Amino acid sequence: MRVDIITCQPGLLSGPFSHSIVKRAIEKQQVAIHIHDLRSHGLGKHAQIDDYAYGGGAGMVLMVEPIVRCIEALQAARNYDKIIYMAPDGEKLTQSMANRLSLDQNLMLLCGHYKGVDERIREHFITHEVSIGEYVISGGELAAAIVVDAVVRLIPGVLSDASSALNDSFQDGLLEPPIYTRPASFRDLTVPTVLFTGNAQQIDEWKLTQSIARTRARAPHLLKIDEEEG
Amino acid sequence: MRVDIITCQPGLLSGPFSHSIVKRAIEKQQVAIHIHDLRSHGLGKHAQIDDYAYGGGAGMVLMVEPIVRCIEALQAARNYDKIIYMAPDGEKLTQSMANRLSLDQNLMLLCGHYKGVDERIREHFITHEVSIGEYVISGGELAAAIVVDAVVRLIPGVLSDASSALNDSFQDGLLEPPIYTRPASFRDLTVPTVLFTGNAQQIDEWKLTQSIARTRARAPHLLKIDEEEG
Repeated sequence: MRVDIITCQPGLLSGPFSHSIVKRAIEKQQVAIHIHDLRSHGLGKHAQIDDYAYGGGAGMVLMVEPIVRCIEALQAARNYDKIIYMAPDGEKLTQSMANRLSLDQNLMLLCGHYKGVDERIREHFITHEVSIGEYVISGGELAAAIVVDAVVRLIPGVLSDASSALNDSFQDGLLEPPIYTRPASFRDLTVPTVLFTGNAQQIDEWKLTQSIARTRARAPHLLKIDEEEG
Repeated sequence: MRVDIITCQPGLLSGPFSHSIVKRAIEKQQVAIHIHDLRSHGLGKHAQIDDYAYGGGAGMVLMVEPIVRCIEALQAARNYDKIIYMAPDGEKLTQSMANRLSLDQNLMLLCGHYKGVDERIREHFITHEVSIGEYVISGGELAAAIVVDAVVRLIPGVLSDASSALNDSFQDGLLEPPIYTRPASFRDLTVPTVLFTGNAQQIDEWKLTQSIARTRARAPHLLKIDEEEG
């Protein structure tokens, strides 16, 4: 998979892709991530990329032309499955959306910043709009990093043990059960004794019961979807 | 505001806080962010911080003791309003939660990684669990960066123009209207003519109509909440 990220704040993306799982996926050539500084497509000698909003209002708006230049330069080199704008009012990122995106070959992610991008970009050059949640952050950069992380870890071979991703919360429609590790006792806090029985079936039943109870308490809509689909 | 972040992957947090709005808030001393490497509280000569899950299963679990050491060292120095674990099954981050968090003085954020933390941490040492959305990412670090960004920009004085945050999507229960900037015409794409009238009342009415239409189309539940509360 190849991911191209267009941003006016490339520094915000310096950490997320140079550590942990995404870094290893890049090293193993399972994903290539290219970050494009919008300013290199800016206008005039000041490489302008933003301007005041028509009709007034606080905050700067990213201009149409530098973004179109960048998008079209990338499209001239290859076809993109999706050109995604990270927007708080976009389609909500879910685990199933991450699963679908992990099947794509070439993704382009456009990050807004300040008040966002000129609407003409959203209407005419973007194919999908994705939101990571109902809250406002300073720009699309961290949101793009979230999408990349959520998607890259689903590419076969990226995680060392495939079952680790398959058992994740949401992946099977259930939240994960509680997990414990050594020591068995810390101060007066102990580990449920079932986990020491060595009885795999009993342990699996306990985990499933815990998963269902936790899902019912914290994310009951996940169970409802299952029931409706089933 | 002071934010302490406990992580086993401090490098993931190197970018988000050294650029853009959070960086400027740090420079203006409106927020102080301290990142604590869990490994410095690790056990034994290898500074162990994780171990296999009791009862089997793929993935490593962050151990109780290094985390408790770190939390208690911080608590010895000051009181914390909240000790938050970033968890996919935690309470969903919303703009109103961000508003509430922006009033706190001292926040502690614990980032899970791999399969997460020993359940005893969640049950006995954490006061709140927060999720940025219903998808799985490699660790809590990017989620913590999202929370910090969403919260810090709400601290008075952080944004240069306060009205910029007040008009954000979700903040007033409505999504933002489309925004446009120069040029008025790009290829055959033009800007709605109302924005050139110079009639402030007409422009405000257009923006409100657009906001309501967008909210109805993309996030109708926001309107419902308003109607229920009203």
